[in-house]
Amino acid sequence: MVSGKVSDRHSYEQRLDHLVERTGERGLDALLVTSDESIAYLTGFRPVQLERFFGVVVAPGQSAVIVPALDRGQIDEAPPQLIRISYGAESDGMPELAEALADARTVGVEEDHLIYARARALGERGFELAPAGSVVMGLRIAKDAAEIERIRAACELVEAGLRRAFEWLSPGVVEHALNARVEGWLREQGASGAHPLILFGENAANPHADPGPRELREGDVVCADLSACLDGYWGDLTRCATAGPASDWATRAWQVVLDAQRAAIAAAQPGVPARDVDHAQRQIVEAANGLGACLHGAGHAVGLSIHEPPFLVPRADEPLVEGSVLTIEPGIYKRGVGGIRLEDDVVVRPGGPKVLSTLPLELVQLGA
Amino acid sequence: MVSGKVSDRHSYEQRLDHLVERTGERGLDALLVTSDESIAYLTGFRPVQLERFFGVVVAPGQSAVIVPALDRGQIDEAPPQLIRISYGAESDGMPELAEALADARTVGVEEDHLIYARARALGERGFELAPAGSVVMGLRIAKDAAEIERIRAACELVEAGLRRAFEWLSPGVVEHALNARVEGWLREQGASGAHPLILFGENAANPHADPGPRELREGDVVCADLSACLDGYWGDLTRCATAGPASDWATRAWQVVLDAQRAAIAAAQPGVPARDVDHAQRQIVEAANGLGACLHGAGHAVGLSIHEPPFLVPRADEPLVEGSVLTIEPGIYKRGVGGIRLEDDVVVRPGGPKVLSTLPLELVQLGA
Repeated sequence: MVSGKVSDRHSYEQRLDHLVERTGERGLDALLVTSDESIAYLTGFRPVQLERFFGVVVAPGQSAVIVPALDRGQIDEAPPQLIRISYGAESDGMPELAEALADARTVGVEEDHLIYARARALGERGFELAPAGSVVMGLRIAKDAAEIERIRAACELVEAGLRRAFEWLSPGVVEHALNARVEGWLREQGASGAHPLILFGENAANPHADPGPRELREGDVVCADLSACLDGYWGDLTRCATAGPASDWATRAWQVVLDAQRAAIAAAQPGVPARDVDHAQRQIVEAANGLGACLHGAGHAVGLSIHEPPFLVPRADEPLVEGSVLTIEPGIYKRGVGGIRLEDDVVVRPGGPKVLSTLPLELVQLGA
Repeated sequence: MVSGKVSDRHSYEQRLDHLVERTGERGLDALLVTSDESIAYLTGFRPVQLERFFGVVVAPGQSAVIVPALDRGQIDEAPPQLIRISYGAESDGMPELAEALADARTVGVEEDHLIYARARALGERGFELAPAGSVVMGLRIAKDAAEIERIRAACELVEAGLRRAFEWLSPGVVEHALNARVEGWLREQGASGAHPLILFGENAANPHADPGPRELREGDVVCADLSACLDGYWGDLTRCATAGPASDWATRAWQVVLDAQRAAIAAAQPGVPARDVDHAQRQIVEAANGLGACLHGAGHAVGLSIHEPPFLVPRADEPLVEGSVLTIEPGIYKRGVGGIRLEDDVVVRPGGPKVLSTLPLELVQLGA
């Protein structure tokens, strides 16, 4: 977060003020923010959590940031409204947290992050916890122009990474080595995080397979899912290729997924239930079930986290929000054969969805 | 986990049998295992968790592994005693988990991993949760010979990475770029995960600073902490260097940390309380407080996780266990000047601690 530090700092203060307000509106005495990304959203500091406790206490009276002594040198940029609390190796941070929560009784927590041990420790000290992740995400979900620009810049880097990956691919290249090379390249370009998942042939039939020792062979399909974090924000794209001419299966699967992606992007309108975006892709992929299975939802939001709510799955009924950035990534998977997925990052807005990447969706023929 | 698949599979079955036994001994009806590493320990499969639920239910009656449909292709190697359950995008996995827990009432959980939302969901379904992370860690803590050999092999890779890093370092090299290069190199050698944290000059005074755009300058100290995961197990080492001749501060700080590391390693004996290892380093580092601050404990265990219990901090009173592998990593940090840390991975055993790495602890003079 080197660029725009002054305006960022301004944002941190504004975000904290908004969150204090919403905490009060929700009837909470305090809100405990614990996830890396929410802490970064409020302070500009992304912790290395491991086993140590980090938190921001948001409260109408006095807000605070709590970090291990080890990290106290890193919160200088946090908003001045936050009092700084650090604890040494003799503490697990819970006494300091309890002190910061002071006489709060009902404490909202990020229920998808706070671990059971800490929830229990707070309960034993008399605090009553309430799930309130949506209070923080209610702010984080709508990205401002500066955030969207950062996601776009991350997508641009990922596009360059995909181009490289396809240049470097030819029969005999080892799956694991290619993924390592692409990851190293993304990091050398300045990515603070990068997750290439480039899978060959039948490995691509498992969307989350581990890259292994398998070599690329003539006739393989390649499913290349790349994500990178640049300046705090993630971009996440998937494109596919074939080694040699595409098989009949690959061509047909790609066409189905392309149609499904178009339909899902078109459905991503403000106010529409998140599950409708999934439904748009699912009915197309499932109708082609001779070609393979529909193994996952249409996508997820992306921002400071690579995966953040809303998740575009059948059970998600929350309406889409203007300014959200969603991955739209239908896929079709046939065990023993391969997988095809196409993924773009899309801004939800009243004028119609805006795709943040420009890389063609074509089924690339390697070396052609 | 390519090598030794047959014997691994055998281990997974034995581990599961042991854990079923201990679950019963603890008076638990079932044990819910949710962390990546504990799932890998029992099944050979390390999940990509993100927002989706993964779990192993360990119970005297019937044990089960529960994964999203997306990942059902990946659990073929899990022990045959585990029934396989997968759930589609329409579920959050909780109904399937509840079914697997069947008529269990008291359910042990990994309290440092299970999130509050899922703990709540289980509570609402009538299950009574009990912290039981120590039941799983009670097995994981004592590494067998094959596991120790894997940690040693990971250390060997990290040593090679440290040598490379020091070769690549000269004034003008950018901190961020060097970290990216070392990470790419470690991954190209086969690391499935790698965290270089190589910090220059005053940046090294924050043990968890982010590598940034700063260039190495003549007179800087370099604190190089490298970890890499090879074949499922982590190695984690730290060495230090100076650009040009070492300053008086660097020489004296290095000597203090060297003494502290020797004392802490000598204290790492089976049966000794974990905090005694911390005390051994702390009293030496704190006695030299003109040179800087003692910001963290003596180290932590390492294995399938890069940080796992026991943590060698003042509040840790549990006795050390034979077969544990501990990082021993005292450090001293002076704001505005730099930091020195020396870290090795050490096996606790009756004959005296065994250091798994061979790289000298010397304060390297770069380019000399």
